[in-house]
Amino acid sequence: MSIITLASHSSLQILHGAKKEGFQTEIVVDKKRQSFYKRFPFIDKFHVYSNEDEAVSLINNIQDSIFIPHGSLIEYIGMERVSKIRIPIFGNRSLFPWESNQEKKMKLLELSKIKTPTRFSDPEEVDRTVIVKLPGAKGGKGYFVARSKGEVKDGIRRLLDKGMVNDQREIIIQEYVIGIPMYFQFFYSPIFRRVELTGIDIRYETNIDGLKRLPSWISQEPSFVVAGNIPAVARESLLPAVFDYAESFVATTREVVPPGIIGPFCLESIVTENLDVIVFEFSGRIVAGTNLYIDGSPYSWLYWDEPMSVGRRISREIKLAKENNRTSEVTT
Amino acid sequence: MSIITLASHSSLQILHGAKKEGFQTEIVVDKKRQSFYKRFPFIDKFHVYSNEDEAVSLINNIQDSIFIPHGSLIEYIGMERVSKIRIPIFGNRSLFPWESNQEKKMKLLELSKIKTPTRFSDPEEVDRTVIVKLPGAKGGKGYFVARSKGEVKDGIRRLLDKGMVNDQREIIIQEYVIGIPMYFQFFYSPIFRRVELTGIDIRYETNIDGLKRLPSWISQEPSFVVAGNIPAVARESLLPAVFDYAESFVATTREVVPPGIIGPFCLESIVTENLDVIVFEFSGRIVAGTNLYIDGSPYSWLYWDEPMSVGRRISREIKLAKENNRTSEVTT
Amino acid sequence: MSIITLASHSSLQILHGAKKEGFQTEIVVDKKRQSFYKRFPFIDKFHVYSNEDEAVSLINNIQDSIFIPHGSLIEYIGMERVSKIRIPIFGNRSLFPWESNQEKKMKLLELSKIKTPTRFSDPEEVDRTVIVKLPGAKGGKGYFVARSKGEVKDGIRRLLDKGMVNDQREIIIQEYVIGIPMYFQFFYSPIFRRVELTGIDIRYETNIDGLKRLPSWISQEPSFVVAGNIPAVARESLLPAVFDYAESFVATTREVVPPGIIGPFCLESIVTENLDVIVFEFSGRIVAGTNLYIDGSPYSWLYWDEPMSVGRRISREIKLAKENNRTSEVTT
Repeated sequence: MSIITLASHSSLQILHGAKKEGFQTEIVVDKKRQSFYKRFPFIDKFHVYSNEDEAVSLINNIQDSIFIPHGSLIEYIGMERVSKIRIPIFGNRSLFPWESNQEKKMKLLELSKIKTPTRFSDPEEVDRTVIVKLPGAKGGKGYFVARSKGEVKDGIRRLLDKGMVNDQREIIIQEYVIGIPMYFQFFYSPIFRRVELTGIDIRYETNIDGLKRLPSWISQEPSFVVAGNIPAVARESLLPAVFDYAESFVATTREVVPPGIIGPFCLESIVTENLDVIVFEFSGRIVAGTNLYIDGSPYSWLYWDEPMSVGRRISREIKLAKENNRTSEVTT
Repeated sequence: MSIITLASHSSLQILHGAKKEGFQTEIVVDKKRQSFYKRFPFIDKFHVYSNEDEAVSLINNIQDSIFIPHGSLIEYIGMERVSKIRIPIFGNRSLFPWESNQEKKMKLLELSKIKTPTRFSDPEEVDRTVIVKLPGAKGGKGYFVARSKGEVKDGIRRLLDKGMVNDQREIIIQEYVIGIPMYFQFFYSPIFRRVELTGIDIRYETNIDGLKRLPSWISQEPSFVVAGNIPAVARESLLPAVFDYAESFVATTREVVPPGIIGPFCLESIVTENLDVIVFEFSGRIVAGTNLYIDGSPYSWLYWDEPMSVGRRISREIKLAKENNRTSEVTT
Repeated sequence: MSIITLASHSSLQILHGAKKEGFQTEIVVDKKRQSFYKRFPFIDKFHVYSNEDEAVSLINNIQDSIFIPHGSLIEYIGMERVSKIRIPIFGNRSLFPWESNQEKKMKLLELSKIKTPTRFSDPEEVDRTVIVKLPGAKGGKGYFVARSKGEVKDGIRRLLDKGMVNDQREIIIQEYVIGIPMYFQFFYSPIFRRVELTGIDIRYETNIDGLKRLPSWISQEPSFVVAGNIPAVARESLLPAVFDYAESFVATTREVVPPGIIGPFCLESIVTENLDVIVFEFSGRIVAGTNLYIDGSPYSWLYWDEPMSVGRRISREIKLAKENNRTSEVTT
C-alpha cells in the first residue's frame, strides 16, 4: 500500500513520515520541480505532470493507495479538479468546499462557540480598523489593513483592477484584532477518539516581518505573504481553552459536515493582552507550520515516545486504521 | 516515591520528565482544569481542589513524595499558603520570599556582581527612560514604559486606581535598557556541583510583539503580557560571561540564603549592542520558557546523550540524590 | 586521529559532533576562556594560548589531526596567521581570501546567476535606500542604513573617524532589499557529491530586534550586532530555487576557486514579497546559526535517521573520506 501526495507545501514531511511507518511513498510532481524532489531517498516513485489535468489523472491511476491532501492542494490544482480525485483521500473531502468559502468557514467556527473577530459583510458597515483578505490559500498576498470604510473600498477597488479578485463578495473583512498571532496545530484521531496538540507556530511573513527592521523614515506598504514559520510554545494556562475550542470544532464539523474533521487541522489565532484566544481562520488539512517539527514538537513528545511529525502521525493513523479494519473511518 | 506539582505553568513538562525517570506522578489541579490534564497518560494520580486552601492540604497529605515548585506557584496559591507546604520541596524554599520582593531580588543580583539596570526607588529621581513593573509573576500585566518622572507618576496612579497594585513601594522602576531580550535558563546541580545551561528563550508578549505588525498610523498602548516563548541560541562568545554570572549567583545565594539555589533558575537579560549582558530579573524556579525543550535544547544535548528537559533534569537530580543518600541536598 | 578547532563561534558544536563520530577532540583556546570550555566533557585536550601567534604555532604542532575553520576564525586570528596553518584544514582554504573581500565575494554569487542586491562601488552613485557594511565578520557592528548619497558619505566619514574602517574602498554599499531575512545553511559533500540543506535561521540582532519593542516616541539609532539566532523553516515551494542557487554556487567555486566549496556554507538572503530570494552575502564555512541544531534540524532529519548537527556532519564527512581513502577530497 502506498501513500501519495502532491509535491510542495508539506509533501517532504508527509512522505518522510509515511516511509517511517513502512509505506511505499509516491509523489505527483510538476515536471519543473522533479529534479528537486529526486534528492530525497524516502520518495519511492515519481508521477510527473505537465498540467493540472494530468496531475489528477495520474493520481487516479495509482492503485492501492491513499492520497494525502495538504494546505496548498486546492490552490495548486483547483477545487474542480480536486473533486475529481477518485482514490481514497485521508480526511474529510466534504470539508474542502467549506474551507474555500470564507463565509462558511467563519460560520463553522462560530457554531463551535469559538471567539472570532467581528466580520463586516459590507464595506459600508466598517467602523473600526479591519484586515481585508482574499479567498483561497494564497499565502497572504494582497491582504491589507484599513482603518475606515473609505480605505476598505479603495483597497478593494485596487484588487479588482489588478485582477487579484473577481468578485467583491469573495472578500472577507474582519476586525483587526490587536494581539499576537499563534497558530495552534491539532490532530483529531478517529482511532483514539482524541484531539492531540501537535505544535504551535508563528508565520514568518514578507515584507511585514522585515519592515519592523526598517528605519521609521522609510515608508513602505506592508505585505503579508507567508514565506516560512517560526516555532513557539504557549503558556500552559492557555491550553485548556484552546483544547475546548478544538474539541468543540471537531463536534461541530461532525454534525454539519459529516463525518467531520479527520486528522490535522489548525486554529489560526490572535492572543490578546487579556489572554483571550480569537480565532480568525482555520485550516482543515496539514499546515506548513508543521514542517518545523519533522522530529517532533514540544507537544507531540507528550503523546509519543518517538519522533512524531504530523506527516508521520497521518501515516500512523492510517496504519492503525488498517490493522483494525477501520480504514473507512479515516478516509473519504 | 512520587513527584508532585501544581497544575499549570510547566506541570506537563515536570510530570512528563518525572515519568521518564521512573517516578509515580501526581498533580494537584483546579477542578476546572481537571479534564484538560486527564488527556495526558503520564499523569498517574489527580488531586482535585476547589480552592487554594484545599490545594495546600491535598499537597500535605501525599505520602513519600517531593513537591516541585514552578514559576506560577506563588501567583496561584499565594506566599502565605506556600509557606504551609510541609512535604519536601525540590529546591530552596527560603528563596521564595526573596523572589517575591523586587528590592531583595535585585540585591541578590548586585551582590553577585552581575550587571543590572539602574534602579530608581523614588519616581522623583527618574532621569531617563524607564520600565515600571508590578510585583509577583503576573506575566507582565500592567508593565509600562515611561520617559519622565511625570509619566511614571501618572502611570503608577492609574495602577493604584485600578487596584492592580496596593502600595507604591511594591513597584519597581528600572532604567529601560536598550537591546534585545534573552532569557538564560540554568540548572545548579548539587549532585554534580556544577551549573548547566539548559536553554535560552525569548518571551512572546501580547500585545507588544503584535504591535510591530501594525501600520504606524494605528496608535495603541503597548502591553507586555507573556503568552508564550520562542527558542533561541546565543553567540558562543557570550556564554563565558553568562556562566560567570550564573556561578557567582549560585555562590551568593549559598551565602545569603543558605543552602542557596538548587535546580533551575533563569537570568532574564537584555543584550546591548556592545554585547553586554544586563540582567533585569531572575527566577529561582523553573521558567515557562523551558517548555520549548521537552525533547532537549541545543545546550542540554551538550551535557546529556538523551533528551533532557528541565522537568526531566529535576527528576534525574532527585533520583541521583536518592541513590546516593543525598536527598537532603536537593530538598528543603 | 583528532579534530581540532579554535574556541568560540561553533566550537562546542564542532567538537561535540566530532566526539559522536569517534574522534579525539582538541581545542585551541584563549587562556581567558579556558575555564569555560573545561565544563564540557567531550573536549579531550586543551591547547591554551596567550596571543594569536601562539595559537597558530599550537595548531601546527598537533599531529595527525584536521583543523575545522569556522565563521570567526579570520576575525579572531587574522588572515595572515590563518594562511600559516600548515596542518590539513577541512574545506577549501583558497576560499578564505575571497570571503574576506566583499567585491570578490559578491562576484562569486553573481557568476552563479544568483539574484543579489544592486551594488554601488561609489557613494556618489547611490540613488535609493542602501545598507552600508564593513569588511570581515564583525557581527554587523557599524552597519548602517542610508537613504541618500549624502547620508552614505556622512556615515562612512564617521566610521573612518572612529577607526572602525581604514579605507573607504573596503566598504560595501548595497541596495537595501525590502523583505525578510532568511539564512539558508547548506553542506556540500564531495563524498556523496550532493548538496544538503542543513537548516535555516534568522539572526537575532541587537539592538535592532529590540527597537521594535520600544514606544515610537523613543528615537534610537539602530545597530545590527548579531547576538544569537532563531530557528525557522521556509515554504517548501521556495526550496527548489535555493537548491538551484546552492548547486550553481558549488559549481562556480569549483571552477573559479578550485577545488571549490567543501562542507558547510550559507546563503544569506532576503525573501521579498514576490517570494524572490535575494542573496546579499555568503559564508564559506560553518555559521553560528547552525548552533540551533545540535540535535538535528527539520531539514537534516530528511537525510539522516539520527541527530546530525553540522558539526557532526563535518566529522561524518571526514570519517567517510578516511574510510574510502578520499581524505584529500575534503581537506586542503
